This record gives sequence, structure tokens and C-alpha cells, in this order.
Amino acid sequence: MTPRGVAVLGSTGSVGTTALRVLARHRDRFRVAALTAFANTELLATQALEFHPSYVGICANGATPHAGWTEGSHCLVEAATRSDVSIVINAIVGAAGLDATLAAVRAGKRVALANKETLVMAGALVAEACRAGGGELVPVDSEHSAILQCLAGRTSADVRRLVLTASGGPFREWAPERLANATIADALQHPTWRMGRKISIDSATLANKALEVIEAHFLFGLSYDQIEVVVHPQSIVHSFVEFVDGSVLAQMGTPSMELPVLYALTHPERVSDEAMPHFDPVAWPALTFERVRMDDFPALALGMAAGRRGGAAPAVYNAANEQAVSLFLENRIRFMDVARAIESALAACANGPGETRAEVMRADATAREHVLEMFAC
Amino acid sequence: MTPRGVAVLGSTGSVGTTALRVLARHRDRFRVAALTAFANTELLATQALEFHPSYVGICANGATPHAGWTEGSHCLVEAATRSDVSIVINAIVGAAGLDATLAAVRAGKRVALANKETLVMAGALVAEACRAGGGELVPVDSEHSAILQCLAGRTSADVRRLVLTASGGPFREWAPERLANATIADALQHPTWRMGRKISIDSATLANKALEVIEAHFLFGLSYDQIEVVVHPQSIVHSFVEFVDGSVLAQMGTPSMELPVLYALTHPERVSDEAMPHFDPVAWPALTFERVRMDDFPALALGMAAGRRGGAAPAVYNAANEQAVSLFLENRIRFMDVARAIESALAACANGPGETRAEVMRADATAREHVLEMFAC
Repeated sequence: MTPRGVAVLGSTGSVGTTALRVLARHRDRFRVAALTAFANTELLATQALEFHPSYVGICANGATPHAGWTEGSHCLVEAATRSDVSIVINAIVGAAGLDATLAAVRAGKRVALANKETLVMAGALVAEACRAGGGELVPVDSEHSAILQCLAGRTSADVRRLVLTASGGPFREWAPERLANATIADALQHPTWRMGRKISIDSATLANKALEVIEAHFLFGLSYDQIEVVVHPQSIVHSFVEFVDGSVLAQMGTPSMELPVLYALTHPERVSDEAMPHFDPVAWPALTFERVRMDDFPALALGMAAGRRGGAAPAVYNAANEQAVSLFLENRIRFMDVARAIESALAACANGPGETRAEVMRADATAREHVLEMFAC
Repeated sequence: MTPRGVAVLGSTGSVGTTALRVLARHRDRFRVAALTAFANTELLATQALEFHPSYVGICANGATPHAGWTEGSHCLVEAATRSDVSIVINAIVGAAGLDATLAAVRAGKRVALANKETLVMAGALVAEACRAGGGELVPVDSEHSAILQCLAGRTSADVRRLVLTASGGPFREWAPERLANATIADALQHPTWRMGRKISIDSATLANKALEVIEAHFLFGLSYDQIEVVVHPQSIVHSFVEFVDGSVLAQMGTPSMELPVLYALTHPERVSDEAMPHFDPVAWPALTFERVRMDDFPALALGMAAGRRGGAAPAVYNAANEQAVSLFLENRIRFMDVARAIESALAACANGPGETRAEVMRADATAREHVLEMFAC
């Protein structure tokens, strides 16, 4: 069996480095054909030495590329569409990952998608590109990987409901008045997952869970009435699927992105990997479930409403959130301003359509401008 | 679609009445073609009036059958092999269910098996009968139904390990000295499941879990090294499957036999049933897992060892247990005598072969005699 070529977009980030750890164990099946990073030339060079990809790209201008590397953000699409690549791990953070996803599925590739923003902002567009090019999306998010595994080939017609689990983030038990004064450091202290900065803030606001609900809607073809969220502080149950006969399946395990990455590569097959830990439920903490405090974490309800509303609303939600998180991480706005920014942008900018790439990008840009103006940045 | 004919063997017991409740909701797909009971003529007559089966059998001699009923234990095989029956729900308790299972699978039927003793005493024989006749076994036990659902068509080659959950029974937290004085009433107080008397005692001794391990070995083609037991007092996780890539799936829900019965009828399809409750994990108690107290509940280790030993040992284990439970329920021996009886019978009677029906029945009879003699009954 010839190893399948894999492009890792965002190889120096949290998911990217995890993916390379997994790929290093499965060189008989997968070959790292392309690597791209945003600006971390040092780590990228180390990775290139280890995996010998045919293509290396660095997105940020002025990042001093090594000899033979491609410089500039067009490297994402180039890497994703190479003829020696059959699987693209899209671990780009945020809207910047969209074009690579579209190009890859149009070129018939499998996209292992850790970049949920892609689907949120342009779900219909991505679905159309998959149909047109014969490509496919396989989720790398732990929740969606769990659902895909529980479905095991069954279609949406067999599903009564999905229940996505949420850790609740670092502020699960914080009172509203305390939330108002949450710092960047507070928000980055995720209780169960080690992740990048943007997704850690999204987990603190619960915007991440809204993005996941919209992602699930598009990935699994289910209505928003069929997708719920429950807080599960231990992050052991990665999500539930309830079937039409009342049966409930769950995928479980201690939090690690290695399995979602491996499964996205091998789906629907399973490949033996003895480095994956053997589970021991006795070592788990007691597993508990709570309702979400929807009123105290308004970003979740706003996102679910944006998903239902459709059109430009999901793209506006995503862009406003990205812009606001960026301002929060620069210490220019306060924690609860993130949800306020989203709400304001949705009220002001979400009435347009969101079918074409141009419409989506316009909604994205308008929402970002709105947020910057709102805080007079 | 013509409804498929179903025979319910043991229709007046706990699983039998549950099965009829489920079948009553799915008359478009299933028709109750045959009913048999041990001795409860009154309930059997009520059931016959409701479902209009073509065949009604009563096993116990002298039970005063109604007009048109068949009397005597041969009714089990007759019901199981009728031409208008395609699925046999075998809800007989104990070794008495063996011949009906063998006859049904030899006749190409699906056997929805709640009678785990059948597989334990004669696993190889039943497997051979399935091959010869084209029949199949689908488990009705909640643990094995959970495993079948988690497997979702994957074979044993994809499985690293099964972990069967056990409630721990009514004596989970009892100290050994207290166990020695456990009464019949104590042992019948199962904390999470309402079941028949024999299986309730088996759950108190943990013999039930040993029978389930052996059943899983035969049903799923896995070695005993790949099957473990963990105590889960809340009985919400019905069992786990760990795959070769380290992923863990579980089937979950509040304890009810309705789903295992329905799924055994429809597998691999799922059929919509709005009477099945919608799950709410927030309403669940905290889910916890503990190691089994193997030394205090010796029936479990004895059973797992009998399974590994093979030959006549599983049949001896099962028969000694049945005989001892029967004596315990008659208040003629004490609770810990059940495991002592099993241990003694295994030491004395388990060296023979257990391939043919004659060998199995001889092992069964010898073990029962041994237990009766042991207590001078």
C-alpha cells in the first residue's frame, strides 16, 4: 500500500503538532507531503527536517522563509491542492482557512477539518464545493468526531437528537459580577483541554459551542431543533447521539486530540495504535452533567440563533467573535464585551445573503469593521 | 411489508412481558405468532386474547391448558421452529432454553436471546447449529445489546477490549461478614433493575456477570483476555467497546429492557419509537466506576476461569449455579454457599468434554447432582 499524502495546514499550532505526532506513528499509511505555518519558521524548519515534505509554506510576509519554501498566504491553497496530497488537515485558526477548504474539496480531497470557522461562515458554499469536486469533510473536533463515530454510517434519518457536551470552560461556576471582571489569564485557564489562545477564549465565552452546533448542523444534516448542548465538566463524554429508537451512544475518553486526528485520517476504518492509552473508567472522575447557564453566557444563544437565521448571520457571528476575541486578547475590551460585540454586529450586519464567497467575505468584513468601530479602535 | 412472525418463549416472565409491550407498539412490523409460558395460564390466556397468536404452549404438566393450547415442554421447540415464525425471543430462564435455541437457529431463525445460559453451557454447539442452519443470535441482555450497537458492524479485528458494566448488585458495599448472613429478601433487592428471581440472585453473587462474560466471548468472538468487568452502580452505561485505535464507545440510558428487545428485533436497522423516553443526562446521577471486589464475590472469578477452561466447565458452572440458586431460594442453603457449590462442582465434574449435546447435558446433570449431594438434599 502506497502511503497517502497529507498536507498539514497550521502545522506549528496545537492541532498541527498533535497531527504530526500521530502521523509520525503511521508512516506506513501516511506521508507528510506538505506543511504550512503562519509565522513560526523555527518550528516549521524542525518539522520539515523530520518529515521531508515536498512543499513547505509560510503565510506571514517577512517571516524569513528558508530556501525552497513558499512565502505568502496563497501557500495554503497551493498546499491543499497538490497532486501528491489526498488528505488536508486544516488546522488554521479562523476565517483564513476558508479558501483552502474550498479549494481542497473542489479538488476532490478529504479535508480533516479542525477549522470549524470554515463551515460556520460558509456551510452552504462548502457543501456545494464538496458536491462539485467530490471532496469530503471529516471533522477533527472531538465532539464531531465522537458523533461521526457513534453514527457509524447511519444517516440523519436514524437520528432523534445530538447532544454536544461542553466542559463549561474556566468560568462555569463564576457568578455574573465576577465574569464582568475576568482577565485574559483567567479566560485562558481551560480546565480540561490544552488548546490555542483563540479557541480557549471561545470556550470561556461558550462561543466555541455555538460554532460547534452550527458545524454539526452542516456536517450531519440535522435541524437546529435536533442539536442540544449540555455541560459536562469532566470532558470524558465527547458527545451523545440519540437514535430514533431511543438508544443513546457516546464516544468517551480522557481529553486528547490524537484520536480525532487519527480517526479523521482513517475513517471509516480504524487503525491499530498502541500509543493511544488504554482507558480505565475507574481512574475517571465521577461524570456529571448540568444545564448550560444560557443567560450568563450569551454568546451561545446568539450563535445558535444566528445558525437558525442563516444567510449572512453565521458569517457575521463568526467574524464579530473573531474580531472581538482578538481585541480581548489585546486587552482592549472586557470579557463580556465579546458577546456584546457579537450581538451588536448581528443586529447591524446580518440581514444580507450568505451563499456565495463574495457575500460571505463581505459579511465577514462588515462585521469586523462594525466591532472595531463599536469600540472606536 | 408483511409483519414478521415472532415467537415469545417465556412470555409471562419479566423479559417476556416487556417484549409483548414492545411488540404491541410495532404491529406494522411484527406479528406475535407463538407464545409459551411455564405455568402462568392466567396471564398467558390474557396475552393470547390480546395478540391472537397461531400457537400457544404451556410447559408445566398439570397447568390446565386452555382449548387449542399445546401442553408439555416440547412446546418450546415447536413454537421456535414454526414456519410462520422468523424471530424467536428466547426468554426462558436457565438450561431449559437450550433445545429451543438450537432448533431455532438450525431452522434458520433469528434468536433474540435473553437466555444467556444457552450460550454459556453450549456455546460451541450453538455456534455450529447457526452455521449449519443459517440462523443467528442477537443478544437481548442490555450489556450485549450495548456492545452490538457500539460495534455497528465492525468485526472483532477492530476491537481491543470489551468492558462489561456491573451494577455490583445489592451487596456491592456489604462487608464479607455481613454477606455470610444475607437473606433471600436481601438478595432480591436489586438496586437498579427489576428482574426475575433467578437473575436477581445471580446479580447479587455476580455469577450473572460471569455468565455475561462467557456469553460475550461466544457472541463476539473475543478472547477472555479482551473482556473485563467494571462496577458501575448507576447502571446508565450499559457497556463499553474499546477499539484498536484507542477510541471508546458506550451505549447509555436509564435501565430498561425495552430497547434491547426492540433492537434485537430490528438489528441492524433502527425503528422509530416515540414511547422510548428521551434521555436527559442532567437527570442522571453522577456516573461512577469501581473495581470489582473479586475476592468477596468468588462466583465471578470462578465463572471467568470456567470460561477459559472450556470443555464441560461452563456447563458445570451454569448448572451448579442454577441448582445452588434454587436451593438458596428455597432457604436450604446460605448465600455464600452458592459460590462454594460452584467451586466444588467445578473441582469434581468439569474435566470432561462439552462439545455435543449429550456431553453438555451429562455435565449439567452431574453438576446438579453434585450440588444436591453436597448439601445432602
